[in-house]
Amino acid sequence: MSQGKAIEKIMAAMGRNARQTAKILAGLDAAQKTAALHGAADAIRAATAEILAANAKDMQSAEKRGLAASRLDRLMLDAGRIAAMATGVDQVADLPDPIGQVDQNWTPANGLDISRVRTPLGVVGMIYESRPNVTADAGAICVKAGNAVILRGGADGFYSSMAIAKAFRSGLAAGGLPMDAVQLVPDTDRAAVGAMLSGLEGNIDLIIPRGGKSLIARVQAEARVPVLSHLEGLCHVYVHKDADADMARAIVLNAKMRRTGVCGAAETLLIDQACAAELLPAIASDLQAAGCELRGDEAARALVPDMTGATEEDWATEYLDAILSIRVVDTLDAAMAHIACYGSDHTESIITENTEAATRFLNGVDSAIVMHNASTQYADGGEFGFGAEIGIATGRLHARGPVGAAQLTSYHYVVRGHGHIRA
Amino acid sequence: MSQGKAIEKIMAAMGRNARQTAKILAGLDAAQKTAALHGAADAIRAATAEILAANAKDMQSAEKRGLAASRLDRLMLDAGRIAAMATGVDQVADLPDPIGQVDQNWTPANGLDISRVRTPLGVVGMIYESRPNVTADAGAICVKAGNAVILRGGADGFYSSMAIAKAFRSGLAAGGLPMDAVQLVPDTDRAAVGAMLSGLEGNIDLIIPRGGKSLIARVQAEARVPVLSHLEGLCHVYVHKDADADMARAIVLNAKMRRTGVCGAAETLLIDQACAAELLPAIASDLQAAGCELRGDEAARALVPDMTGATEEDWATEYLDAILSIRVVDTLDAAMAHIACYGSDHTESIITENTEAATRFLNGVDSAIVMHNASTQYADGGEFGFGAEIGIATGRLHARGPVGAAQLTSYHYVVRGHGHIRA
Repeated sequence: MSQGKAIEKIMAAMGRNARQTAKILAGLDAAQKTAALHGAADAIRAATAEILAANAKDMQSAEKRGLAASRLDRLMLDAGRIAAMATGVDQVADLPDPIGQVDQNWTPANGLDISRVRTPLGVVGMIYESRPNVTADAGAICVKAGNAVILRGGADGFYSSMAIAKAFRSGLAAGGLPMDAVQLVPDTDRAAVGAMLSGLEGNIDLIIPRGGKSLIARVQAEARVPVLSHLEGLCHVYVHKDADADMARAIVLNAKMRRTGVCGAAETLLIDQACAAELLPAIASDLQAAGCELRGDEAARALVPDMTGATEEDWATEYLDAILSIRVVDTLDAAMAHIACYGSDHTESIITENTEAATRFLNGVDSAIVMHNASTQYADGGEFGFGAEIGIATGRLHARGPVGAAQLTSYHYVVRGHGHIRA
Repeated sequence: MSQGKAIEKIMAAMGRNARQTAKILAGLDAAQKTAALHGAADAIRAATAEILAANAKDMQSAEKRGLAASRLDRLMLDAGRIAAMATGVDQVADLPDPIGQVDQNWTPANGLDISRVRTPLGVVGMIYESRPNVTADAGAICVKAGNAVILRGGADGFYSSMAIAKAFRSGLAAGGLPMDAVQLVPDTDRAAVGAMLSGLEGNIDLIIPRGGKSLIARVQAEARVPVLSHLEGLCHVYVHKDADADMARAIVLNAKMRRTGVCGAAETLLIDQACAAELLPAIASDLQAAGCELRGDEAARALVPDMTGATEEDWATEYLDAILSIRVVDTLDAAMAHIACYGSDHTESIITENTEAATRFLNGVDSAIVMHNASTQYADGGEFGFGAEIGIATGRLHARGPVGAAQLTSYHYVVRGHGHIRA
């Protein structure tokens, strides 16, 4: 048997296990899931030495292959990061249980009592790259929502993810949950991804890809099941002419420089021409003092000569780095048109004291998150009060914005009658 | 240029038009959409003669091709049906506007004011078969939700749909809306379906197929964009041992025979062995008196000898006809296991006076709609109070159960701060 066929057999079996397990998970009460997830957190803490040893193996191999420093950092685990991972699982465990929650209850004219009640989604397929902590995060979020999950981590973090998953599963089992609630593909064969994208014979309900553009492109080309897209975050801050100057300076600096590698980091500053002369030099000097490279259009460079020229490509680039593109715009409409053209529907913020302008921006910009007088770095499930998140969805179907346990659910209608027959 | 290429160019242009129009629709206020939809209803009424003439052309052609009587009936329009179609559009016009509705509003620990606000989905691609009235129904529901729609009707009803769409679009335009809010593919080339399933270069956000198994199979095999599935309705009524006898008789008769061709019609009766001897003969005689053919398992036939034997295939068949399969089950668990094995996740109902049994059934059966002491024929957006519906979704993503205007929306988060920067 070729390796391709072997992995397909393994994947098909994982799919069947996941489907069976999802049926069991759907029937569990909240306390059982909470306890088992705390057990998984404890098991991760108890396995710290094992996880560190596995991670050392991954790091050695990655260094040998000359991985970039940023990828090495994403891959690296230490005792602090493992403790934080376990705490994250504890926090998900303590979230309110989304399953069984009644979204709505009403009685139409026919007198039936109708409730819309949250149910699990079923089986989630999670495909990710470097960060091994996704193994625990995604496992916890999926189990909390009563879903089984099939995890396919990146080759870089293979041994780390295997060690984390082993601990997680043993913790679940100690808490009385089927350990196949969380399965990790025990192979780095890329055919496993193809099998998941085909849906494993109807045994995957939703694919969540987290990774670079080549992974996303492959998923979009091949997936035969619904996908919750997490595209790039090309986020904009628009400083309106009626912005408070100090607030604008503080928010732009924070939105760009607090952390440059997160998807909620601002990549482009749009500034109204009416306030650019007064405000842009100060904003630019704040950013440059913090080590940010600036790339501006003609009007911006006329005000701040020591920045390079921005090209068309800059407007379309998610730097994920200490670089900001800057464009001076004539009007609110021009700002919104720029965002509609170059944005990635992730997060955009307007800074203004003008309520009418803010309302037009908030209604007119079609992104998962639109903000007024706040830093785009708040685009985060934790900050939204969702507990942990599995990412920020930029598509329009099912869930948009931060995706936590509550977003990884479906619903059904429970209808109560008294012998109702329809005329 | 080959015909295939010509239709692809037409479809690509329709996609671009739809995307541009969707952006305009997203910015309209409720009153504009309501008025324009009433205008569309008026225009349909005014075009009755034209629509009847077009329908006569379709009917002649269909009769020549020897279409089955049931399909001819689905295709046929008369003045009454056209008036009902227009009234349906008026009813959708008068529904509450889902767009801008605030689902939730909260303030997490960071002090931000966060609202989840309903937005349009964008562009819907609707692929349907015989019934030309879907042209008006789907057009109205999509426009109400601020979506542009590309309609691809079946070849049988081509001229009827063209006439309805022409009237609908002129009514929209008279009300100040872009008429490309509703576009009908002006061609019966099947390549148009392929183009829609490919997503028209990112210009279709959601495909909704309505039709027979071959259409659904093609959509599942080819779609490169999200699909809202409307699979068959293999609905079950389970008569529990603690059922009220008269209620059980009335509900089973109604669930099967009120209308046999709708997706909410019951196809299988499961009856508890503890009450089968007492109840099944009466239920069977009601059904037989109403002209229903019965196909039972051994135990059922022992109680009602004049029914044929049910095969494995019967349990898996959506008859959409005056035929009912009947199985005697030992326990509630056995009933739930039968439904899990053969059901289509559409609608199932338990008849019982036992609250505990009802609760177990409602929690344990994973269908879009689960009912207690009510006829499955209530599976209908109108009965749910949604106004019109575009179908009953049987998938688990985005929307489940009856899909009306409110279900054809997305949401985004509106975040209001006071100069919030993140630590």
